[in-house]
Amino acid sequence: MTTLPIRPAVAGLSGERFRVVYHLLGDRAEARRKAEDIIIEQTIEFPADLAPEGDIRDHIVGRIERLRRLKTGRWEAVISYSSECAGPDLAQFLNVIFGNISIKPGIRLMALDLPPALLANFKGPRFGRAGLRQQLNVHGRPLMCSALKPMGLDSAALADMAYRFALGGLDLIKDDHGLANQPFAPFHERVQRCAEAVARANQRTGLNCLYLPNITAPADKIVEYARFARQHGAGGLLLCPGITGFDAMRLLADDDSIALPIMSHPSFYGSMVTDSRSGFSHYAFYGQLQRLAGADMSVYPNFGGRFAFSVDECRSIVAGTEVDMGPVRPCFPAPGGGMTMEKVPLMNAVYGTEVVYLVGGGLHRHSADLTANVRYFMDLIQPQP
Amino acid sequence: MTTLPIRPAVAGLSGERFRVVYHLLGDRAEARRKAEDIIIEQTIEFPADLAPEGDIRDHIVGRIERLRRLKTGRWEAVISYSSECAGPDLAQFLNVIFGNISIKPGIRLMALDLPPALLANFKGPRFGRAGLRQQLNVHGRPLMCSALKPMGLDSAALADMAYRFALGGLDLIKDDHGLANQPFAPFHERVQRCAEAVARANQRTGLNCLYLPNITAPADKIVEYARFARQHGAGGLLLCPGITGFDAMRLLADDDSIALPIMSHPSFYGSMVTDSRSGFSHYAFYGQLQRLAGADMSVYPNFGGRFAFSVDECRSIVAGTEVDMGPVRPCFPAPGGGMTMEKVPLMNAVYGTEVVYLVGGGLHRHSADLTANVRYFMDLIQPQP
Repeated sequence: MTTLPIRPAVAGLSGERFRVVYHLLGDRAEARRKAEDIIIEQTIEFPADLAPEGDIRDHIVGRIERLRRLKTGRWEAVISYSSECAGPDLAQFLNVIFGNISIKPGIRLMALDLPPALLANFKGPRFGRAGLRQQLNVHGRPLMCSALKPMGLDSAALADMAYRFALGGLDLIKDDHGLANQPFAPFHERVQRCAEAVARANQRTGLNCLYLPNITAPADKIVEYARFARQHGAGGLLLCPGITGFDAMRLLADDDSIALPIMSHPSFYGSMVTDSRSGFSHYAFYGQLQRLAGADMSVYPNFGGRFAFSVDECRSIVAGTEVDMGPVRPCFPAPGGGMTMEKVPLMNAVYGTEVVYLVGGGLHRHSADLTANVRYFMDLIQPQP
Repeated sequence: MTTLPIRPAVAGLSGERFRVVYHLLGDRAEARRKAEDIIIEQTIEFPADLAPEGDIRDHIVGRIERLRRLKTGRWEAVISYSSECAGPDLAQFLNVIFGNISIKPGIRLMALDLPPALLANFKGPRFGRAGLRQQLNVHGRPLMCSALKPMGLDSAALADMAYRFALGGLDLIKDDHGLANQPFAPFHERVQRCAEAVARANQRTGLNCLYLPNITAPADKIVEYARFARQHGAGGLLLCPGITGFDAMRLLADDDSIALPIMSHPSFYGSMVTDSRSGFSHYAFYGQLQRLAGADMSVYPNFGGRFAFSVDECRSIVAGTEVDMGPVRPCFPAPGGGMTMEKVPLMNAVYGTEVVYLVGGGLHRHSADLTANVRYFMDLIQPQP
């Protein structure tokens, strides 16, 4: 029943700390227990009374900076951690902010508050909002994107669709995230054909529509796929970090030999957000985390579409994509689905011009002429005078 | 209002399908809507009435094989997909079984039912239960593992702890999953020292205790770290696929130049399971998926510990680690925490001998002599005559 026989000083501690805001369920005593649990579980994961005295107890263990009851009945805990516990890489940062406690019910990560020295570890989006607009040379209006689908079409058919889309003036054309390396439209063939088709359309329109192939692939192929895409004229990349891990996106964003805008797709990761009692807030997950991991565009389901996100949740995502994070650039919110003429005024109110709209099925339904349909939707989203 | 102008035949379809069992919330009509939603959302993600007729509607769209009400009031939907939609890699497989629908409430993935040809795409655990026992030369009793911690100790202190553990006869010693590449115990230094310490203890005991460093690291470092660990005497690897992505684990398992047993840790991924209305069942997530991704041991919180897993949920994990999956070997369930003398009889009943027990704080609390404490716990888990 003693402490460890070893009591080293902890090397390398700068004293700098970062803060994470959690919401906790329960009464006062339960919230206090949860907060005390977090500071241990996310750091030393060791009985507090047995931990070595000194630096480990004083600096490595997390610190409860604030615990207060909110009007909703939930508790807000602000917890700080030594930056060195989470450093120096994104993988370990994720582990500290929401590792073991991700398994405990009634703890939801709401927001990150990171000091400049920690933010300096993250390059964030290579382009961000301003950089992507510069690539496209489009200003003062929302950006418009659609997806090549359905799964099962061959590369020629997908390239034909890409050509029609680009001719109509779309800003961005992505693979549907379900297009991988299936026999009916293998990755390398598809990328070459679609990139070529979009380039051909751009020559006719004088625009710079970007084609974003899906490079969600085996772990040892992602970078290779991205480089192939770049070499063959792709204008950006689509990635599902729920499948590849967030750090694979960070790696692509940081790689100077790739240097393409990245659209992050939420496939597989839905459960990280949908239970309001645990996981991450929309703000943190679709906003802040995506930026730390290098996304230039963060896809999520728009309100009123096939999914269950509320207008307020979508507003909070917008806030997370643009809150000041020092050198980490703002990214575009990219709400998908649910675009109808009736909803355009509300969408304008929620998103303004700093948004990438994903339009899918509706674009095919409007008429048999895909190019005309794109023009129709492009007109729809022009800012009203 | 027409179908697509293009109607290609779909190349490469074998006709083989695999099945996924989902539980759905809602009344009969709602369950039907959800099932119909899944078969579209996970495949063509395109309005069904606009999808090209022929192969795409007939084979690419998922198929509702069964929909029935359970005694719990939930609905069980068995949905089949063409193997080629999900192939040929794990990343795309994850995308098809639980991509967009992960964002929709009231859909929980319960189980996978995969045909031999699809299973042949996955090598699964390199060692599995039998292979790991062979490595250790331990048979007929549970395996025992503990973790090097707390975070903040330097490499020398961690190595000293590893030595004491190994001398006591532990089968496996892992880094705590919070040990990354922090300045106080940098990865390369820590691995060398701890592996050397365990080797030294093995020389004294004649046993083959394995040291498993945590290689949850930046995406471009994971394989390099694993090879370094192998070269410097590590006997296995610890990885958090919630952070690295499942396919990073698959890559390590498949790599002949690494060839070490892998322990999968659930950090960051808790929300994929904890909300019983969505995400994955314990059976599928901690059992089947881990095996497809190459885990030889699947860590999760034991019942009665600091987390909220029930005895039944733990039993279902055991089932998922050993259900017949053709060539994909069974892996060890590795329940963590909550080990007390009083609970040993129930743990024996739930787990039998085919289990890796993780014991943490309790091992430090028992007395000041870590080696004696290990011996005490090793005696505790011997099968009772």
